Amino acid sequence: MSDGFFTPVSGFDLPRFAGVPSFMRLPHVPLDHPRIAEVQVGLIGAPWDGGTTNRPGPRHGPRQLRDASTMIRAQNGITGVRPFERVRCADLGDVGPNPADVLDSLRRMELFYSRVRDLGIVPLTAGGDHLCSLPILRALARDRPLGMIHFDSHTDLFHSYFGGTMYTHGTPFRRAVEEGLLDPQRVTMIGIRGTAYDSEDRDFATAVGIRVIPIEEFHARGPEDVMVEARDRAAGRETYVSYDIDFVDPAYAPGTGTPEVGGPTSWQALQVAQGLRGVKIVGADLVEVSPPFDPSGGTAFLGVSIMFEMLCAIAESMG
Amino acid sequence: MSDGFFTPVSGFDLPRFAGVPSFMRLPHVPLDHPRIAEVQVGLIGAPWDGGTTNRPGPRHGPRQLRDASTMIRAQNGITGVRPFERVRCADLGDVGPNPADVLDSLRRMELFYSRVRDLGIVPLTAGGDHLCSLPILRALARDRPLGMIHFDSHTDLFHSYFGGTMYTHGTPFRRAVEEGLLDPQRVTMIGIRGTAYDSEDRDFATAVGIRVIPIEEFHARGPEDVMVEARDRAAGRETYVSYDIDFVDPAYAPGTGTPEVGGPTSWQALQVAQGLRGVKIVGADLVEVSPPFDPSGGTAFLGVSIMFEMLCAIAESMG
Amino acid sequence: MSDGFFTPVSGFDLPRFAGVPSFMRLPHVPLDHPRIAEVQVGLIGAPWDGGTTNRPGPRHGPRQLRDASTMIRAQNGITGVRPFERVRCADLGDVGPNPADVLDSLRRMELFYSRVRDLGIVPLTAGGDHLCSLPILRALARDRPLGMIHFDSHTDLFHSYFGGTMYTHGTPFRRAVEEGLLDPQRVTMIGIRGTAYDSEDRDFATAVGIRVIPIEEFHARGPEDVMVEARDRAAGRETYVSYDIDFVDPAYAPGTGTPEVGGPTSWQALQVAQGLRGVKIVGADLVEVSPPFDPSGGTAFLGVSIMFEMLCAIAESMG
Amino acid sequence: MSDGFFTPVSGFDLPRFAGVPSFMRLPHVPLDHPRIAEVQVGLIGAPWDGGTTNRPGPRHGPRQLRDASTMIRAQNGITGVRPFERVRCADLGDVGPNPADVLDSLRRMELFYSRVRDLGIVPLTAGGDHLCSLPILRALARDRPLGMIHFDSHTDLFHSYFGGTMYTHGTPFRRAVEEGLLDPQRVTMIGIRGTAYDSEDRDFATAVGIRVIPIEEFHARGPEDVMVEARDRAAGRETYVSYDIDFVDPAYAPGTGTPEVGGPTSWQALQVAQGLRGVKIVGADLVEVSPPFDPSGGTAFLGVSIMFEMLCAIAESMG
Amino acid sequence: MSDGFFTPVSGFDLPRFAGVPSFMRLPHVPLDHPRIAEVQVGLIGAPWDGGTTNRPGPRHGPRQLRDASTMIRAQNGITGVRPFERVRCADLGDVGPNPADVLDSLRRMELFYSRVRDLGIVPLTAGGDHLCSLPILRALARDRPLGMIHFDSHTDLFHSYFGGTMYTHGTPFRRAVEEGLLDPQRVTMIGIRGTAYDSEDRDFATAVGIRVIPIEEFHARGPEDVMVEARDRAAGRETYVSYDIDFVDPAYAPGTGTPEVGGPTSWQALQVAQGLRGVKIVGADLVEVSPPFDPSGGTAFLGVSIMFEMLCAIAESMG
Amino acid sequence: MSDGFFTPVSGFDLPRFAGVPSFMRLPHVPLDHPRIAEVQVGLIGAPWDGGTTNRPGPRHGPRQLRDASTMIRAQNGITGVRPFERVRCADLGDVGPNPADVLDSLRRMELFYSRVRDLGIVPLTAGGDHLCSLPILRALARDRPLGMIHFDSHTDLFHSYFGGTMYTHGTPFRRAVEEGLLDPQRVTMIGIRGTAYDSEDRDFATAVGIRVIPIEEFHARGPEDVMVEARDRAAGRETYVSYDIDFVDPAYAPGTGTPEVGGPTSWQALQVAQGLRGVKIVGADLVEVSPPFDPSGGTAFLGVSIMFEMLCAIAESMG
Repeated sequence: MSDGFFTPVSGFDLPRFAGVPSFMRLPHVPLDHPRIAEVQVGLIGAPWDGGTTNRPGPRHGPRQLRDASTMIRAQNGITGVRPFERVRCADLGDVGPNPADVLDSLRRMELFYSRVRDLGIVPLTAGGDHLCSLPILRALARDRPLGMIHFDSHTDLFHSYFGGTMYTHGTPFRRAVEEGLLDPQRVTMIGIRGTAYDSEDRDFATAVGIRVIPIEEFHARGPEDVMVEARDRAAGRETYVSYDIDFVDPAYAPGTGTPEVGGPTSWQALQVAQGLRGVKIVGADLVEVSPPFDPSGGTAFLGVSIMFEMLCAIAESMG
Repeated sequence: MSDGFFTPVSGFDLPRFAGVPSFMRLPHVPLDHPRIAEVQVGLIGAPWDGGTTNRPGPRHGPRQLRDASTMIRAQNGITGVRPFERVRCADLGDVGPNPADVLDSLRRMELFYSRVRDLGIVPLTAGGDHLCSLPILRALARDRPLGMIHFDSHTDLFHSYFGGTMYTHGTPFRRAVEEGLLDPQRVTMIGIRGTAYDSEDRDFATAVGIRVIPIEEFHARGPEDVMVEARDRAAGRETYVSYDIDFVDPAYAPGTGTPEVGGPTSWQALQVAQGLRGVKIVGADLVEVSPPFDPSGGTAFLGVSIMFEMLCAIAESMG
Repeated sequence: MSDGFFTPVSGFDLPRFAGVPSFMRLPHVPLDHPRIAEVQVGLIGAPWDGGTTNRPGPRHGPRQLRDASTMIRAQNGITGVRPFERVRCADLGDVGPNPADVLDSLRRMELFYSRVRDLGIVPLTAGGDHLCSLPILRALARDRPLGMIHFDSHTDLFHSYFGGTMYTHGTPFRRAVEEGLLDPQRVTMIGIRGTAYDSEDRDFATAVGIRVIPIEEFHARGPEDVMVEARDRAAGRETYVSYDIDFVDPAYAPGTGTPEVGGPTSWQALQVAQGLRGVKIVGADLVEVSPPFDPSGGTAFLGVSIMFEMLCAIAESMG
Repeated sequence: MSDGFFTPVSGFDLPRFAGVPSFMRLPHVPLDHPRIAEVQVGLIGAPWDGGTTNRPGPRHGPRQLRDASTMIRAQNGITGVRPFERVRCADLGDVGPNPADVLDSLRRMELFYSRVRDLGIVPLTAGGDHLCSLPILRALARDRPLGMIHFDSHTDLFHSYFGGTMYTHGTPFRRAVEEGLLDPQRVTMIGIRGTAYDSEDRDFATAVGIRVIPIEEFHARGPEDVMVEARDRAAGRETYVSYDIDFVDPAYAPGTGTPEVGGPTSWQALQVAQGLRGVKIVGADLVEVSPPFDPSGGTAFLGVSIMFEMLCAIAESMG
Repeated sequence: MSDGFFTPVSGFDLPRFAGVPSFMRLPHVPLDHPRIAEVQVGLIGAPWDGGTTNRPGPRHGPRQLRDASTMIRAQNGITGVRPFERVRCADLGDVGPNPADVLDSLRRMELFYSRVRDLGIVPLTAGGDHLCSLPILRALARDRPLGMIHFDSHTDLFHSYFGGTMYTHGTPFRRAVEEGLLDPQRVTMIGIRGTAYDSEDRDFATAVGIRVIPIEEFHARGPEDVMVEARDRAAGRETYVSYDIDFVDPAYAPGTGTPEVGGPTSWQALQVAQGLRGVKIVGADLVEVSPPFDPSGGTAFLGVSIMFEMLCAIAESMG
Repeated sequence: MSDGFFTPVSGFDLPRFAGVPSFMRLPHVPLDHPRIAEVQVGLIGAPWDGGTTNRPGPRHGPRQLRDASTMIRAQNGITGVRPFERVRCADLGDVGPNPADVLDSLRRMELFYSRVRDLGIVPLTAGGDHLCSLPILRALARDRPLGMIHFDSHTDLFHSYFGGTMYTHGTPFRRAVEEGLLDPQRVTMIGIRGTAYDSEDRDFATAVGIRVIPIEEFHARGPEDVMVEARDRAAGRETYVSYDIDFVDPAYAPGTGTPEVGGPTSWQALQVAQGLRGVKIVGADLVEVSPPFDPSGGTAFLGVSIMFEMLCAIAESMG
């Protein structure tokens, strides 16, 4: 890091409201940039919501997350970890979606993440709706299934919507299991809650061996105990982390399309991310931030605060 | 339910943002509808705020609650109860108020609820300000006093306002006790807090035997323990449930006219509603949702989530 | 109209904030309703935005337009026309879209409008993004091309987006011309403005004979003169009217996804609709109202005010 | 004015966002203040909306208008008039309403304004809904009818609402005519528009001799010509001015409960107020500003800008 | 208090939305008012944000806090304390800042508070950004250092910003320690969290003996235990209380410029203020409320609720 | 332009909501970028509001303007000019201000613009409050005075504020005249309006020869005629253009700190910018966009639409 290229701009030098916003004020290094080969962790925007069956908006997520991320500083307030000094991080820009064609977007995203993987870069994605996890997994898990720790209020394990539509933000992990991208025995879903259509998704989870920790169990056990189990199930092997912002209670994260009340606090939202320390993370995402429903911008700031915690966990596991 | 008339529209068939909004996507069955006699539980809007002494807006509550309620699905996420399959539910529409005449509105509401009672329908009301509980009680308790479980940050037991005005949203339960509509020994008020004018309301409660559980006791004991007491006091007899959304902390429910800070979380808000299981509920309301103060719409969604829990408790007690 | 079934609820009887909202407080008459055969003009919601290439949200348009429409009264303030007494109008509900599949949505919409046409009902549609005009035209113009008067800031005549995507809200009228649904000689596009990608759309218009009246000409000539020309071009034959709310300046209509500044006022927006008197209208739409970008709700109210003017023009031409 | 007591605080001395807000930064002089006898023009808040049949909120108007008014400076930008140097102005505070009792509020207001009149103070009122004009007229016109220049999109001449409710914000001037408070031959109503229930109000106006200038005539003639007629009708005799903010188009004034599109611009809104020069004004009001529907606060600022123009006209006629 | 001058207006007499807003509806008593000598506790607005390095807005704080404070009643809901009957309180108005000159503003503020101190009045300040604590301390601690209990998510102990700027809202307590205004051994900072630039501020705290209780310790120990320590450290001697609203989680207090997620709830926010009972408070402030980021106004209401708790603690210690 | 480096990203290729936002999707070329020497027109953000005496927020302007600018396309809709093909444009990033020190910020800005000038780049600045025009003029006019065409509702010609503060957003052009940076005979100020402190600024203008066209004259003559005069006064010589967004009526541009009602429409706002064709522009700015007061984002979009018109005028004069 000797030349400072990968050092984020400090708020002591340039006020945090100033400058072209990139994720965490990192350098913008597109895939064709001369220094791309040096990047170890790539922050990527996936601005789409073509899979959204309810209220749209996550296509605007990456831009608002970049904006809010300029308030993130260089050091973890609790652990003292300074991730940008441990690993070379960069903002790789956005993957270009096709907002009017879901299947084309899935192809574009898989292609982009395959290139990222081939470059040896660990992707930390800012969504986008939750369907974006599927093409990422297709790229990252193309040769062996991954474990997954999944924070959400929904399982996203449904079979289909609207009489046979297979690709929506309610189905990515059903597809991922069917396609062999996930190892269900190493998948843990945390925070599931809200009214249900029926039990089809939970029955599927049980059938294939996915562990679902519903919200009542989460509240009873607490975040630390739950994370012990999730880490145990990850089993020290390669694991993807998928964090839907609607895991958090909508008082803390109103800016999302399908909120469910009764969720964790922001402190618990950070605690579970801190509980990722020690997991072998090959990629992570933070999805479903929807700026049009976020009048004060707080959802995006919570989102990037969680991304920073995930980044610290990634940096520690790499360094 | 064989013909499907009383089955709500599913989000798997019609996206949740589509369709003329009715409460929980139930059929709209006004009192003169041919199938009104089949209805067991009636969801009713009471769009008024004529009793509001502070910030107005609850007259817009029912419409926003209907809108948010199209995100409610058919099954309780924790208990698995499917209320719409247990009892025939319908949206009975709104009772028509007179926004410029409080006493006329009280008459209109009492008349409407008397018809609902005569039809043998259990009313689940979406207010409106809290004064609407009075005409409902006049209709439901006209022949014997009811018990009541009351979630609120205020007792609404004041004598009068502005030099003798007897009917405001701060006085309904004072009137109800005076009129013999409530049996104070079976009334429990939970969550009371905020700065106080004086102790007149609390002194009245003590004098007549109403149990007030203030917020500091609620936080110390927790929702489950508190609900044991409330159920015990209800004594297995006919009980009304009145739920003021300002029971919940304003971070979770900003859309209300007289918030008080330091309140329960949304999870606790659901827990107390779940604690109604086993209570013999003859009617319930969710009041004081005020859309103009709810920039992200989250208050209404919390409100209908609570209504769904109350509906499950009603359905279980009926089925 | 003798039994009052088709008479809207009056604000003198039920306050305008009360009641399950239907378009202009008309009866809700789905296609399978016993009285559907009596309907002459059907107000229909098309809640989708699958063709949106920029900021989404029009899927929420119909619901907000219904809500705002309860402030519409029974009589035209200028002409004195009372449309609901001239023709039997009803709210036919929403056509059910598939938010995750554009082509499936186009099929669903075409099917719905074909049934409407077969019932002899003139459809007045509340969108939805502008791509919804295409399936409507496919249904209404299946046997002969229609004229069109089109209010918009964009021509929506582009060939394709994102390397070949043919169905977006920027392409419906290109497709409609290609499919023979429109007679270009009888098509007038009014209010076109904003920065341009290039001149491809305008060149196409010129080539096929569509008349484009750009905003600078509109401002120079005024709405009345422009409408004389549009009516002349419609030539007294069957004509469709398509009204994109972004025709109006964003100060008056901020709630839309692709605004262009420098547009007409709300008074001019009404004047051009009033200028439809005498046109033989076989269908009309008001599209691109996007509630997430409409903080005060004024866009929806302007939208339904325009719909009312269009309805008056339809009623006069039918009666 | 020698001691500076009646001189507003200048933004050159104290920033405009600082200080306890009073109308136009004038001294707060309640009716029992030692210097009340010196006051010539009293700015008064009427925080109520008990007569509102549609969307509430004007009870919050006076406070927001005071807040916005601290951006008003001392000199008219066009005429150079400095009203605070011509006449002694003060903020008399708010008249205390009873939000749960319309008739009691009418009594309280009439009593307050009778005292103001007895003190020889010309009242300039910030409403409040439009019903507040009635008790003001009862106080000011108790011994002879007044002329009136009325800016509005509604006539407020309806007989009654909801089956006989006589006192709403849609009826004040019907009552005022019936009670002999207005001389219809000297009343001019400007800007009337929007959909209509029926023609009852306009027929009444015609019958008694009130001149209604509807919006289409206003747009055709322009504000200056219209004001010539209004001044002529006022006939140099004592006249009240009532200005409903919904006179202005909702793009300029979204913060109101019953907007009607197609209205004047803010420049025209000022022009008609400037056209009051030469009218013998005995009182004026600016009503129906509703902060909950005014996300950017612009309606209140427009409202106080109009109040300042009216104040200049009053000051010139007095000085 | 015999003449009632210092008694706040009651919501039973004048609705809480009515009247010129002063802090807690107390009389407005500027420093040159004839009754200033009777005041024991002065509520003061400090409308400035000249020290803000991030998002501005606290200059608007005092006005919004006054507005929200009219919802505060006379009696503490838990302890029953009626502070306005124990001590004579008044709204002293705002200290006039210079928004374009930081150093001039510091001088103006120090001068104002010196006069307050000389009058023997305990100041309870509504900020303003956190730099305002510095001139207050300069006035109050000019002859001996004070202890301090400081609630915040930031230490505000940084040396300088932007290459040497010494006076910002991130530096006031560094300056205060350097100037001998604080006794570090009696200073406790509670709730510190968020990403960090580096450890410079925490190292300084350790070096001089300031006790920092970071958020993870706060969550582990709870507010009551933490406050025992803070009170012990205050040691029964004169202590200042500085309460930055960003101490509270942004779900509860979105209206602030530099939020940090993972903070206390509103109940905990009140609990720590209640934990001030028994501290010898010579002055207190509530700072960093920023209305432009507070869409529902809830932050200001939480702020004044905290101010009321602080006022009760002050009143008890004085009475 | 052969290698496409200076070609903005097209919305046909990457959706307009995607990608790291730069001004008009141009390449980001900081002053130390290898291709800086090729740049002819530089778009620059000046994120500060240290000179703001009223409501703050323009420090957030450049970021929101960049965000909105991704909706700008490549071709002028009226003239057909394609500025990015005529001249090489780039986003030079933001000049780094010191938000807590006005004089330091002035130095930083002057230094930055001196470098821009030395590079031969014409700067098009997005403010920032209006004081930023002063350091720009110091850099651009250091060797001879410039003419200026100034669109605003205020003259910004005041001598000082708050007892001697010389540098605020109300004083830049007083300073510029005093410093010999402007040739008053070639300065035209258009759109001046609103209440006035006094006539000091206008008297100064008259004394030195600046031409002020107040709003009443603007409305009477129309934008085209006014611009003829402004161009004549510019006299074909080097001229600066300063465009304060508060020139436009606040209905069109609510997001600004010191609005004045009664202003031009957005169409007129564009017309005056189009009227710059033929002026020899050496630099231009668009200032006072304040996102916190812009709930729907429309002000920023109007701002960049105006910037695009100014850019076209610059490109034509250069090409």
